[in-house]
Amino acid sequence: MQYAQRIDEQSSSNLEALLAAPKAGQVSFAGGLPDPDLFPEAELATGFAEAISQSGDTCLQYNSAAGYLPLREKVAQHLQRSGVPATADSLMLTQGAQQALDLIGRLFIDPGTNVVVEGPTYAGALAAFNAYQPHYLTVPVRPDGMDMGILKTQVQQHDVRLVYTVPDFQNPTGTVMSLTKRQQLLALAEQYDFMIVEDAPYRDLRYKGVTMPSLYELDHKDRVIHVGSFSKILSPGLRLGWLSANPELLTRLIDLKNGADLESSNLMMRGIDNYLQANDLSAHIEQLRQSYARKCQTMVTTLQTNLPGNVQCSNPDGGFFVWLQLPRNMNTETILATCSDDVTFVPSTTLYASGADKSGMRLAFTNPSVTEIKRGAAILANTISRAMTGAVAQAN
Amino acid sequence: MQYAQRIDEQSSSNLEALLAAPKAGQVSFAGGLPDPDLFPEAELATGFAEAISQSGDTCLQYNSAAGYLPLREKVAQHLQRSGVPATADSLMLTQGAQQALDLIGRLFIDPGTNVVVEGPTYAGALAAFNAYQPHYLTVPVRPDGMDMGILKTQVQQHDVRLVYTVPDFQNPTGTVMSLTKRQQLLALAEQYDFMIVEDAPYRDLRYKGVTMPSLYELDHKDRVIHVGSFSKILSPGLRLGWLSANPELLTRLIDLKNGADLESSNLMMRGIDNYLQANDLSAHIEQLRQSYARKCQTMVTTLQTNLPGNVQCSNPDGGFFVWLQLPRNMNTETILATCSDDVTFVPSTTLYASGADKSGMRLAFTNPSVTEIKRGAAILANTISRAMTGAVAQAN
Repeated sequence: MQYAQRIDEQSSSNLEALLAAPKAGQVSFAGGLPDPDLFPEAELATGFAEAISQSGDTCLQYNSAAGYLPLREKVAQHLQRSGVPATADSLMLTQGAQQALDLIGRLFIDPGTNVVVEGPTYAGALAAFNAYQPHYLTVPVRPDGMDMGILKTQVQQHDVRLVYTVPDFQNPTGTVMSLTKRQQLLALAEQYDFMIVEDAPYRDLRYKGVTMPSLYELDHKDRVIHVGSFSKILSPGLRLGWLSANPELLTRLIDLKNGADLESSNLMMRGIDNYLQANDLSAHIEQLRQSYARKCQTMVTTLQTNLPGNVQCSNPDGGFFVWLQLPRNMNTETILATCSDDVTFVPSTTLYASGADKSGMRLAFTNPSVTEIKRGAAILANTISRAMTGAVAQAN
Repeated sequence: MQYAQRIDEQSSSNLEALLAAPKAGQVSFAGGLPDPDLFPEAELATGFAEAISQSGDTCLQYNSAAGYLPLREKVAQHLQRSGVPATADSLMLTQGAQQALDLIGRLFIDPGTNVVVEGPTYAGALAAFNAYQPHYLTVPVRPDGMDMGILKTQVQQHDVRLVYTVPDFQNPTGTVMSLTKRQQLLALAEQYDFMIVEDAPYRDLRYKGVTMPSLYELDHKDRVIHVGSFSKILSPGLRLGWLSANPELLTRLIDLKNGADLESSNLMMRGIDNYLQANDLSAHIEQLRQSYARKCQTMVTTLQTNLPGNVQCSNPDGGFFVWLQLPRNMNTETILATCSDDVTFVPSTTLYASGADKSGMRLAFTNPSVTEIKRGAAILANTISRAMTGAVAQAN
């Protein structure tokens, strides 16, 4: 019995471990899980009950691969409010943003195709693209987004077909790509003939500062596929995301979804549609912003108070993640092994397509309570301090 | 801008058209849609309402790629009652059986990998596998299943990695693979080192005769991956299916699902789990059997009464489909063009990986009412009769 070649090349994605619930007594900063206390349970329950009671004969039947039209219309309205000029006709609904990444990989990537990703990047994007055996080119992330000088060199030297970026509150560093860099990226895409995947699950979760124009809005050459999801702004258990693309790409992506899983759940789409019809999603997101802003500030303050001076702690304007950059000779996997009974996080090792740096860590602050954040961040800072005075976490 | 090579080779799957609702006044025998009057709407509504009200904080959160354990346990119990000895630990829940096929293709198929499919076969399986660019070998379907002589020749002459079959009430011909052929197929798999995909969405929908042992039960060499779904026995709008495989394959398939869409919807899994906890799925399926048996008999009787003698009409023991075999010089696409304002079906042209025969047609009898079946089948038989006396449907 023989597997496909992609299997031999593919290591386990570890995504499963990232999304696991914390053990008893453990504070988890690992998975990007939203706060369950903020799920609009009663309102969603009503949405699903009405879907079945009012249109059970249709919502339990097949629908279409593009997705239920009234929901596409509401997603488009939401995106337009958020500076993403999508329309019902430019959208396809997917099984979370993850499936959108899988289908985009399926459309563009042959074995050996050059794909640019940020370093570090979202491990799930690597897991999606890996199925199609790309050759990755890694471009470092700076405080104002992807390094455009290095990107330019890469696209000059290689025939790049796809650039994957999380421009808003990047996963894992929390950085936001500047307007200048967004414009540079679009100009390079046109000059060097590549497509841009704008993965934007955190775009609406800004806690301070001013929203940047989306790449999708700035693009006038059909170079951008915009990807989003309800996972971080409503509930990940719904598994509903979307992509927006030009008509030719959309037709092909819809056809690929047919092969992948025929279509998304009609019941799921109509339940969410009912919820959006009866409730104000923007007001719900404003609630999330207030709660997550406080959690973010708690984590940053606790860490900055307790960390040694040579550890850089980000202070993100939004999203789910604080990023710690330790001195380059440190190995955060060793630190994780030391403290994982009490506190967990994602070491940077797993967040690179190539040339992994071992000295960073991603801390998700949205799921634990403020009290847990204070306790976990203090334990973590203390563990790091001890590691830096001893030899436990030297790179190996 | 350049697409992956798989895109150039791939024609549109037409699955979308197959699952579309019929137009006004039209009787559709095209899509394999269940009867919406038989959806257990109130019971499912209760299941979903209780999922959110009793455990909203967990069921709206992430779960796991393998799927919610209590539901895997209940699916295993259902399969065991049906002669498929799966367990919770051998199962992964998927976005319908379609995603199971996609992930199996991803695990085994490289460009050019030899994959055996039945001729004719399920168009969706071709759409799933096409993404991985297999080389198809087509083995004809006989009244007792796949032609084992031709299969043996194919696996002797080619290095075959995967054989895809629908052994129970095959899509599209409705045939059942005999016990002898099941045993021959398993022996060939061991001798020539290939895996078997047993796609069994119709297995529980037997209207007469005796249930055959599943390939999964007869297999003692870990050669079979069993695939199933709630789509035909509960509701396709739930988009929940499964696969059962040996531990090594399952681990890899779970990892591939992580890359494809992270996991299935936690809410969906818990809603269905509640339904199965409170209701008797076997009793529900018995209701379906009685209704579909009557529809099947109505279609077969109406067709046999009205069709010319040289058209073969199947009389299936279960499933969703009646198969008409016209004389080989006829083209059923031309017949469809003639009658599609009144009645639609799936012409055989689209149901072959290679060497398509144009003279067959698949008629799904589960969705229309008994009255519509009588009317549609009479119109169809009349259209065929007229075509055979004229020149309208000669093969071209």
